[in-house]
Amino acid sequence: MVFDCEALLFDVFGTVVDWHGSITEELRSRSKGRVEDWADFAAEWRAGYGRMTQDIAKGGNGPLNVDIMHREILDDMLKSAKWSHLSSLWNEEELQDLNLAWHRLHGWADSSEGLYALKKRYMICTLSNGNVRLLADMAKFANLPWDVIFSGELLGSYKPNPKTCLGAAHHLSIPPSRCAMVAAHIYDLRAAASHGMKTIYVRRPTEDTAEIREQVKSKAEGGDVDIVVDSFLELATILGVNSS
Amino acid sequence: MVFDCEALLFDVFGTVVDWHGSITEELRSRSKGRVEDWADFAAEWRAGYGRMTQDIAKGGNGPLNVDIMHREILDDMLKSAKWSHLSSLWNEEELQDLNLAWHRLHGWADSSEGLYALKKRYMICTLSNGNVRLLADMAKFANLPWDVIFSGELLGSYKPNPKTCLGAAHHLSIPPSRCAMVAAHIYDLRAAASHGMKTIYVRRPTEDTAEIREQVKSKAEGGDVDIVVDSFLELATILGVNSS
Repeated sequence: MVFDCEALLFDVFGTVVDWHGSITEELRSRSKGRVEDWADFAAEWRAGYGRMTQDIAKGGNGPLNVDIMHREILDDMLKSAKWSHLSSLWNEEELQDLNLAWHRLHGWADSSEGLYALKKRYMICTLSNGNVRLLADMAKFANLPWDVIFSGELLGSYKPNPKTCLGAAHHLSIPPSRCAMVAAHIYDLRAAASHGMKTIYVRRPTEDTAEIREQVKSKAEGGDVDIVVDSFLELATILGVNSS
Repeated sequence: MVFDCEALLFDVFGTVVDWHGSITEELRSRSKGRVEDWADFAAEWRAGYGRMTQDIAKGGNGPLNVDIMHREILDDMLKSAKWSHLSSLWNEEELQDLNLAWHRLHGWADSSEGLYALKKRYMICTLSNGNVRLLADMAKFANLPWDVIFSGELLGSYKPNPKTCLGAAHHLSIPPSRCAMVAAHIYDLRAAASHGMKTIYVRRPTEDTAEIREQVKSKAEGGDVDIVVDSFLELATILGVNSS
């Protein structure tokens, strides 16, 4: 298909990497034999991050560094009625290391190969709320060959604050219409579209709800996003980029 | 040698890429048979950039986007007594394309291979006055596998303003002492050292003067920088990183 754009801007958590599986596994490996619903713990940790970043994106106060944010949420969780029985499970050093688990998230099976293919024709950039060091460590860990790392911390707010989308386009010296946002969250794409960006929805099992994933359709099918795919390899094929 | 740092921050123009040879050749290829001292033209273009960025680094006004700056300098040169006889050589479209020659600079012979080697152990980042798009295009053109692109435009000023060095360390979530600046300009290294960064001097034929290049010595030799090398491959060897 003809897809007239120069840069693909990727949401990272959930779209490129499997945060839920990776964090659940990291928790389980540090459980010291404790049987808990670690998938639920991971989901709650992530939900706290979602609430805080969205509040700051609207103008609220809070850290622009996600490592600091993740630690604050973790500390609060370990004081909560639900999880306080775990408060002595980890010492300070172990807590610091656990917090860095977010730097070691695994890519989805198609992510690395798909990005290498897409990089041949497009500028591939993160547009993530993660801080720079977190995204750089994750790129090395999961073999993600970014051309540019854009982050909320660098651009001065979190998605969907306009500073993020518009800041990335500004630094790429192109109008938003020459950028496509790639995300597994329809809210990311609607924010990008509101600034004139193109939109690519990637269905990921842990992101949005099953109902939303089914409902999102491409414009050709009567929906509101430009392209809907199940993987980056499918996207590379649709865009005519060889993945081998 | 033991070199306790996590990130190498590279000056780009002159240190990683041969701006003088590349721009001289681009000018010559667009000369339409005109015989001029294109090496001199290239040097004057670059000198204008040096003056403007240093003025802005000290608090002066001017564009934070180097593409805009390069175009302003080019236009001024073509109105100057020395070069105005060339004012009608290029039309607007040709001038725009010529200005983008700075996105297509060739790496020094050792740059790409050396960076791939160093990337195995260190976070390798640009710390350049170039804007993001210029650095990203150049990375694709010259095969420079940056982990992170830091630029004056992203960090809010030009080198040697402290915002640049300290901003990069901040976004890497490490103290300046865990960063080493790599540059072919002693002034870049002295600015980095003043913030506690380690320093690596690379002798490049077009940068500093021959006299300075001879005078710069490592601390082991009684000088003031940590390491002095002639290439990134030599640096990789010294740091014990395999280049194959």
